[in-house]
Amino acid sequence: MQNFTLYTPTKVIFGKGQIAQLRNEIHPDARILLLYGGGSIKNNGVLSQVHAALKGYSVEEFSGIEPNPAYETLIKAVEYIREHDINYLLAVGGGSVIDGTKFVAAAVNYPGEDLWEILATGGANITSALPFSCVLTLPATGSETNNISVVSRLKTHDKQHFASPFIYPKVAILDPEVTYSLPPRQTANGVVDAFVHTLEQYLTYPADAKVQDRYAESLLLTLLEEGPKVLKAPENYDARANVMWAATQALNGLIGAGVPQDWATHMLAHQLTAFHNLDHAQTLAIILPHLLQEKRDTKHAKLLQYAERIWNFTEGTEEQRINQAIHATREFFESLGVKTHFSDYQLDGSSIPGMLQKLEQQGLVALGEHQDITLEISKRIYEASI
Amino acid sequence: MQNFTLYTPTKVIFGKGQIAQLRNEIHPDARILLLYGGGSIKNNGVLSQVHAALKGYSVEEFSGIEPNPAYETLIKAVEYIREHDINYLLAVGGGSVIDGTKFVAAAVNYPGEDLWEILATGGANITSALPFSCVLTLPATGSETNNISVVSRLKTHDKQHFASPFIYPKVAILDPEVTYSLPPRQTANGVVDAFVHTLEQYLTYPADAKVQDRYAESLLLTLLEEGPKVLKAPENYDARANVMWAATQALNGLIGAGVPQDWATHMLAHQLTAFHNLDHAQTLAIILPHLLQEKRDTKHAKLLQYAERIWNFTEGTEEQRINQAIHATREFFESLGVKTHFSDYQLDGSSIPGMLQKLEQQGLVALGEHQDITLEISKRIYEASI
Repeated sequence: MQNFTLYTPTKVIFGKGQIAQLRNEIHPDARILLLYGGGSIKNNGVLSQVHAALKGYSVEEFSGIEPNPAYETLIKAVEYIREHDINYLLAVGGGSVIDGTKFVAAAVNYPGEDLWEILATGGANITSALPFSCVLTLPATGSETNNISVVSRLKTHDKQHFASPFIYPKVAILDPEVTYSLPPRQTANGVVDAFVHTLEQYLTYPADAKVQDRYAESLLLTLLEEGPKVLKAPENYDARANVMWAATQALNGLIGAGVPQDWATHMLAHQLTAFHNLDHAQTLAIILPHLLQEKRDTKHAKLLQYAERIWNFTEGTEEQRINQAIHATREFFESLGVKTHFSDYQLDGSSIPGMLQKLEQQGLVALGEHQDITLEISKRIYEASI
Repeated sequence: MQNFTLYTPTKVIFGKGQIAQLRNEIHPDARILLLYGGGSIKNNGVLSQVHAALKGYSVEEFSGIEPNPAYETLIKAVEYIREHDINYLLAVGGGSVIDGTKFVAAAVNYPGEDLWEILATGGANITSALPFSCVLTLPATGSETNNISVVSRLKTHDKQHFASPFIYPKVAILDPEVTYSLPPRQTANGVVDAFVHTLEQYLTYPADAKVQDRYAESLLLTLLEEGPKVLKAPENYDARANVMWAATQALNGLIGAGVPQDWATHMLAHQLTAFHNLDHAQTLAIILPHLLQEKRDTKHAKLLQYAERIWNFTEGTEEQRINQAIHATREFFESLGVKTHFSDYQLDGSSIPGMLQKLEQQGLVALGEHQDITLEISKRIYEASI
């Protein structure tokens, strides 16, 4: 096992009717800015529940944070806060709204003039942030209990992340019932996103970390079982709860503590969103299977473990079992309606040179748990994904 | 899945050589009282490592906290702190030292005169505590990242627990190398303790909490595999690391979040320690198998799941598989050298009436996940354990 530090200070309040708990968690004198995306939280009653919980509080609203939150939108929120008397943020939405709120929280008092610098430096210069909490409406990214944020800049095709110890949510409210009304596409995306997050912390090389391996397998098995259920029966409470909890656990630091990690799938996928505005999960579903094929030698032992413990593939040669496992992973994504090739999204690969250039600009030229995914290999992965 | 709140704010710093990190985590102006037990941390070099990390800090020492920490000892530490200029506590030891330090941290500013009231009221009236961190030397109780403390009062045969949001350690340093020198009895006790903690959050009734069930099974399988290894090869780093991490995970709130729990084994076992000063793990090993036999009807479904997923018992009738699983659990404890009957410890059961009286005095008359373990059933469990 590798050395690690694990810090998960966000208080999770999970279950039916728990939005009402906001009242017990936020000081009555807080001057709150509620950040959200489009109108879905108005239609499904979540916004009303939040306002009911915070009756008597000072609550203003900032809406319009888009999927893959745009820098251009977020700096408007920063300006609004600087001009108004706001000292607490409340994100109500999915990973994009929470990621956007993290950026806003860190940017309000950021010492530099150019706020994109927060992304460009990975968050290294952040020294404080506004306190904030979140009400999660879409289980997927794990942003609700971690300190990572991904922001896109539309005009330059940039999609980058930053991290900071100052941007953990204080409280995360997770009520599975608010996910009943999610469109199937977003539900499926969430399952794929969490599944890929888990694999990126699991499919590397063995580190004799038995708890972490089995925890990762716990999440994979749960997503495999419950993902199809929530698509078939959107109001199955326990299935929704299991998916929601698995997605949170997939990226709160726990399963990746003490083991090698490989975030190359994310790095390559981010470029696809930046260039073509695909859903985050769609880009992961495209890249992952081809990356696993490309790195099947260095990931050999863990791919075999994955094949056996998750898919029960124990017959045939080792290479056959690995093929089966990669194939089954792809089939799982497709079965949820998330396609796994460029061509499924009417893309022909002509943006590959531009995406490779972005990878190079961002210094992403030695990715993976062995830092051996060069630009040349990234090119092969993109090309195989067409 | 049941509603839950999960709050795990302790920062875990895990791995070789990590005691040196104390310097980065404690403010240089802190006036520290270092609390520990006997001399083992002197002999194995841990105390030297702590002093080296805190060179230049104000560090005083309070030693002599015993296994099953005694109220009588701890109030001496409280008095010492009140008379000296101390504002930070550092527990260096196992669960007993950490539990004792939690009590001391909460007691120093406790508003009441009678400090036993903290235990008698379960911690309800605590409004603050001194900040403290810990260096764990014995993986077992999980105290290093939770907010629970168990304290014994020798003269009255009391062993009780309290909990409070104010007594989470700030930082927990977990270096598996410091456990190399543990005597086999303590190593084995730690494995049994963590195994039983896990079962007390797992062997109840199904709540369709798939992540939690599989996480619990992850810990059980890890302890089954790694427990015998650390006894055979005390300096096997990865095995020590896996046991250490499993023991922490077994009682930090995670696997019990959203599922029913049954702490009756602990409650019955505490009386055995209070009356006979047995090791905590010994008392758990005595009580658990008989409690499972007694409650095999209400625990039926989870006992079958346990039999299959942990022990691979899938043949025979359901009752046979449950018998096999309970038998295998007992055999596992015995194989580690932890005996499972009163008579193994030269006890004849004559203290049972006294222990039942204590349970009654402490209001522990309706235990278990269904509150159906009455005094009469506790009596049967004790008697079957002779």
